[in-house]
Amino acid sequence: MRVASLIPAADWLQGYSRDNLINDGLAAVIVMIMLIPQSLAYALLAGLPAEMGLYASILPLIAYALFGSSRTLSVGPVAVASLMTASAVGSVTAGGNVDYATAATTLALLGGVMLIVLGLLKFGFVANFLSHPVVSGFITASGIIIALGQLGPLMGVSIKGDTLPHLLEDLGSHWVDAHGLTTLIGMCAIGFLLFSRYALTPLLMASGMSERAASLFVRAAPVVIMVVVIPLSYLQGFAEQGVPVVGSVPTGLPAFSKPHLDWVLLEELAMPAFLIALIGFVESVSVGKTLGAKRRQRIDPNQELIGLGAANTAAALSGGFPVTGGFSRSVVNFDAGADTQMASIFTAAGIALAALLLTPALYFLPKAVLAATIIVAVLALIDWNILRLSARFSRADLSAVLLTILVTLLAGVELGVLTGVGVSIGLHLYQTSTPHFAVVGQMPDSEHYRNEKRHDVITTPEILSIRIDESLYFANAAYLEDVLFEEVKGKPDLRHVVLMCPAVNRIDLSALEALERINERLAEQEITLHMSEVKGPVMDALQRSDFLHHLTGQIYLSQHAADLDLRGRRG
Amino acid sequence: MRVASLIPAADWLQGYSRDNLINDGLAAVIVMIMLIPQSLAYALLAGLPAEMGLYASILPLIAYALFGSSRTLSVGPVAVASLMTASAVGSVTAGGNVDYATAATTLALLGGVMLIVLGLLKFGFVANFLSHPVVSGFITASGIIIALGQLGPLMGVSIKGDTLPHLLEDLGSHWVDAHGLTTLIGMCAIGFLLFSRYALTPLLMASGMSERAASLFVRAAPVVIMVVVIPLSYLQGFAEQGVPVVGSVPTGLPAFSKPHLDWVLLEELAMPAFLIALIGFVESVSVGKTLGAKRRQRIDPNQELIGLGAANTAAALSGGFPVTGGFSRSVVNFDAGADTQMASIFTAAGIALAALLLTPALYFLPKAVLAATIIVAVLALIDWNILRLSARFSRADLSAVLLTILVTLLAGVELGVLTGVGVSIGLHLYQTSTPHFAVVGQMPDSEHYRNEKRHDVITTPEILSIRIDESLYFANAAYLEDVLFEEVKGKPDLRHVVLMCPAVNRIDLSALEALERINERLAEQEITLHMSEVKGPVMDALQRSDFLHHLTGQIYLSQHAADLDLRGRRG
Repeated sequence: MRVASLIPAADWLQGYSRDNLINDGLAAVIVMIMLIPQSLAYALLAGLPAEMGLYASILPLIAYALFGSSRTLSVGPVAVASLMTASAVGSVTAGGNVDYATAATTLALLGGVMLIVLGLLKFGFVANFLSHPVVSGFITASGIIIALGQLGPLMGVSIKGDTLPHLLEDLGSHWVDAHGLTTLIGMCAIGFLLFSRYALTPLLMASGMSERAASLFVRAAPVVIMVVVIPLSYLQGFAEQGVPVVGSVPTGLPAFSKPHLDWVLLEELAMPAFLIALIGFVESVSVGKTLGAKRRQRIDPNQELIGLGAANTAAALSGGFPVTGGFSRSVVNFDAGADTQMASIFTAAGIALAALLLTPALYFLPKAVLAATIIVAVLALIDWNILRLSARFSRADLSAVLLTILVTLLAGVELGVLTGVGVSIGLHLYQTSTPHFAVVGQMPDSEHYRNEKRHDVITTPEILSIRIDESLYFANAAYLEDVLFEEVKGKPDLRHVVLMCPAVNRIDLSALEALERINERLAEQEITLHMSEVKGPVMDALQRSDFLHHLTGQIYLSQHAADLDLRGRRG
Repeated sequence: MRVASLIPAADWLQGYSRDNLINDGLAAVIVMIMLIPQSLAYALLAGLPAEMGLYASILPLIAYALFGSSRTLSVGPVAVASLMTASAVGSVTAGGNVDYATAATTLALLGGVMLIVLGLLKFGFVANFLSHPVVSGFITASGIIIALGQLGPLMGVSIKGDTLPHLLEDLGSHWVDAHGLTTLIGMCAIGFLLFSRYALTPLLMASGMSERAASLFVRAAPVVIMVVVIPLSYLQGFAEQGVPVVGSVPTGLPAFSKPHLDWVLLEELAMPAFLIALIGFVESVSVGKTLGAKRRQRIDPNQELIGLGAANTAAALSGGFPVTGGFSRSVVNFDAGADTQMASIFTAAGIALAALLLTPALYFLPKAVLAATIIVAVLALIDWNILRLSARFSRADLSAVLLTILVTLLAGVELGVLTGVGVSIGLHLYQTSTPHFAVVGQMPDSEHYRNEKRHDVITTPEILSIRIDESLYFANAAYLEDVLFEEVKGKPDLRHVVLMCPAVNRIDLSALEALERINERLAEQEITLHMSEVKGPVMDALQRSDFLHHLTGQIYLSQHAADLDLRGRRG
C-alpha cells in the first residue's frame, strides 16, 4: 500500500491553483462565521465547556483535510453526535469516578480508533446496514429530544433527561421557574433566526440578490445575534439580572491532551463510541456522496472511515469531542464555492484565531442565544415525510421507522439506533426466510412458464414445477421442505417434481442438506426430483458436493426443456 | 383458538387402542432403563444433585406428552443443555447470593416461559436462523468440553472450567492427583460401554438377533454396569477407599417448588435461558422432523415451542432443570416401537417409581461410572464431518463452523452460539449486500439475454443492459448505484440503461430511493433508464410510489421487448 494512496490530499495539492486559493479562502470565511456559534452551542448541548466546541473545530478539520475522501465535506461537532455524547458521558460520569471532559475525549478517541481500524479492514460496507428510513427516523427523534432539552437553557431553567418522558416530566415541573429576561432573549433569538431562515431569503432575492448569495448571507444570522447581544448583555448587566451567560472561556489554543486509558471506562464507552462513530460515518458518506455527485467526485467509504477516524483521534488529542461531517456546514462550504479541503484548513486557522482573540467577548453571551441556535438548527432535521413515504410503500419499512422513532424517544439514542438496525435486518431476514414460491405451468403457445395462480397455464398431473423466488440458505431451507411437501401431498399421479431456479442466486450447506432430504423423501414416494434454469454460481456449488450423484432426476437448462422431456417420458 | 388445538394429545388419545398400549408400554420400559443412569449423570454434569436428574424426567415428560407436537420425541435432561446450565449457573452463583438448585430451576422457568410466549406468537421460524453447520459445530465443540470436563470425576479429581484452556490447565495440574481405584473403575466402565456400543451389536446380530433388537439391547449397558458396580462398591467399601460415590439421594417424589422470582437473578439468567431454550428447540425440531418423516407425521414448530415450554415450566415447578428433546433417547423410544406420547407418560411413571424405591441403592454408585456414561455418550456427538463438508462446499459455511467451534472451545458455550448465529447472518447479509451484477447481451438467434462475460452475445453501444441477481434492499442499494455508474463511465455513446430484474424478488424504500437517484443522475447525463422483467410484487410496490412518474424510460415485460424497442429507436 503506497503512503500517497492513504492521503487523498496529495491528489488535490498537486494541481492547486491561485483560483482554488481564492475560492477556498472565501468559503472558509463564510463557514467560520457559521461555525463559531455552532461549535459553542454543540459543546453545551453535549454537556461540555464551550471552549471544547472550538477545540473540536481546529485539529479535526486539518486531519480530515489530509485523510478524508470528500473535497467539500466540513467536519466538526454536529447536533445528533453531541446529543449521543451527552447521553453516553452522562451515564459514565454518574458514578463520579471520571469528569465530563475526560469521558468526552475518550469517546472521541475510541470512535476514532474504531473508524481507522474499520477503514484499514475495508469495512466501509457496514454503512449499508443502516437503512435510510431508519437513519431518518433516528435523526427526527433525536431532533425532537434536542429541541425539547434546549427549552431548559432557553428559559434559564435546568432540564435533565435524554428521553421524551423524562424531558416532559422535567419541563412540566420546571417551566414555572422560567427566568423572564432569559426567556425573552431566547424567544427574540428564535424569532430572528426563523425570520432570517424563512423570510429573509425571499426578501433578499426580491431585492436582486442571487439565491445562492442570499442563502449564504442568512447563514450569518447566528453571528449577527452574537454581535448585537454580547455588547447589550455587557452594557445592561444581563448576568447580574440572573441571565445565565457562557462565562469565562480560557483564551488560547488547546493543549495536547494525553489520552486517559482506563480499562473500565473504555469498556463502558465502547458501545456508545461505536454507535456515534457509525451514525457519524453514515451521515458523512451520505452528505459526501450528495455533494460529490454534483461535481462528479467519488467518495470512497473506506477512505472516509480513515478520514473521520483521523478527525476524531485529532479531536481526542486536542481536548475536543466526537466530530463528524455535518450536513448544513458542508452545504454552506460547497455553496460558498470551496474547491478543496484547503477551505477546511483555512476554517481551522480562523477558529484557532477566534480561540486566541475572541474568547473574552464570549463571557457575556447569554446561553439562551446558543439554545435558540440549536433549536432552529434541529427543527430542520425533523423529517415526517419519511413516515408518509414508508407508510405508503411497505409495512416493513414503516415498522422499522416507527420503532426507531418510538424507541429513540422513549428509551434513548443508543437503544434507538440498535433497534432500528436490528428491526430492519430482522425484517429482511424474516422476509427471505419465508420466500415466495409459485407453482408454474406453460403459457399456451409459448416457451414461458408462469405462476398458475396468476395466469391460465397448462399443467399435467404427473409433473409439479415450483419456481423458488429467493436464494436458498439456512433461514429458508426448512421452509422450502415444508412448502414442497405441502404441494406434493394429495397428488397421487405425481411422478416428477421440477424446481425452477432462475431467482436462486446462492445456495448454502444447510439448503443443500434440505435438497438432499427432499430428494430422499421424494424417492421414498417414487417421485423424481429435477431442477431447471440453475445459475452458474449455484451449479458450481452443487458440483462441489455429492448432490448431483444422489439426485434422482436431471438438471435442465430451461424449464421448457424439462417440461418437454418429462412429458415425453409419459408417452 | 380452540383449546383442543393447543393440546395435540387430544388427537392421539381419541383412537388409542390396546395395540398402542402394548407398544407404548414396552418402549417405556426400554427408555426408562436407559434414562435412569442418564438423568443422574446429566444432573451431575450440570453441577446439581443427582436427584434433580430424576425430577427432570417425571413431570416434564408428562407436560410434553400433552402439549408437544411429536408423537415419539422423548424429552429430559440432555448433554449440551446440561453443560450450558452448568456454565450459566456457575457464573450467577459465583457471588454466593443464590444456590445452584435455585438458579437451575429459575433457568428452566425462564426458558419455559420464553418458549411458550414464542409459541403463542407463532415465532417457530426463529429456529431457521441457527444454520445446521453452526449447530453441528457448536455441539461438536460442546462435546469436547463435556468429555474433557468429565475426565475429572473419572479420575476422582476436581476439574473446573468451561473452556478448553481452563480445562487443559486444570487437567495439567491435577492429573497427578488421580485416584487409582476410581480411575480403574472409570476406565473399566468406559471400556465396557465402548465394547457394547461398537462390538456387541455385531456379535449379537451374528448370533441371530435382529439389528433393531441388538441395538436396543446394548442401550441397557449403563444399567448393567450399575447393577454390577453398586453391590461391588457396597461389599468392597469403595467409598471408604476414597472413591467418590453419589451418596445419599433423597427418597420420594419432587415437591412442588415455588419459583424464586428475584429480578436481578432473572435478568442475569435471561440470556443463557434464551440460548439454552433456543438450542434445545432447534435440536428437538430437528429430531422430531427426522422421526416424523419416517411415519409421515408432521411437526409443527409453533406447537413444539409450546410443548417444550410446558416441559421446562414443569421442570421448574418440580425441582428439575432445563430439559429438551434428546436425540438418542428419542431414537430409542422410536426404535422400541412407541406409537404415541403415552410411552413418555409410562416412562415418567417408571422414573417416579425409581425415585420412590431405588434411591437408597444409588448411595454406593461411584461417580466415575456416571462420568464414563457421559463421555461415551458425547463422543457420538462429535462430528468432524461437517468441517470436511463445509470446507468443500463454501467458504462462508466453513467460516461459520470454524468460528463457532473455536469460540465455543475458547470462550464458552454462550459466546459460541452467539458467534455462530452472528457470523452466519452477517455473512449472508454481506453476500446479499454485494450482489452479482451481469452486463447482458442477446444470444445470437434467440430471445435469450445472457452475461456478456460468459457468452458471445450481441450488444450495442447505445444500450447497457444490467441484470441484477438479488432483491434490492437497504444493504445493497448504495452498491447498485456504485456498480451502475462504474459501468456507465467511459461510454460516450450510451443513451439507454436497462435494468433486467428477473431475480429481484423485493424492493424496499432505500432501494427505491437509490433508483430515484440513479434515474436523476442518468438524466443529467442524458441517458434514459428502463427496467425489464419486473416481477408482480415489485411492480405493485413501484406503483405505490411516485417512481413510475419520474422514470425517464419504460418498464418492459421482457428483456427482448426492451432491446427490440430501444434498437428500433436508434434507426
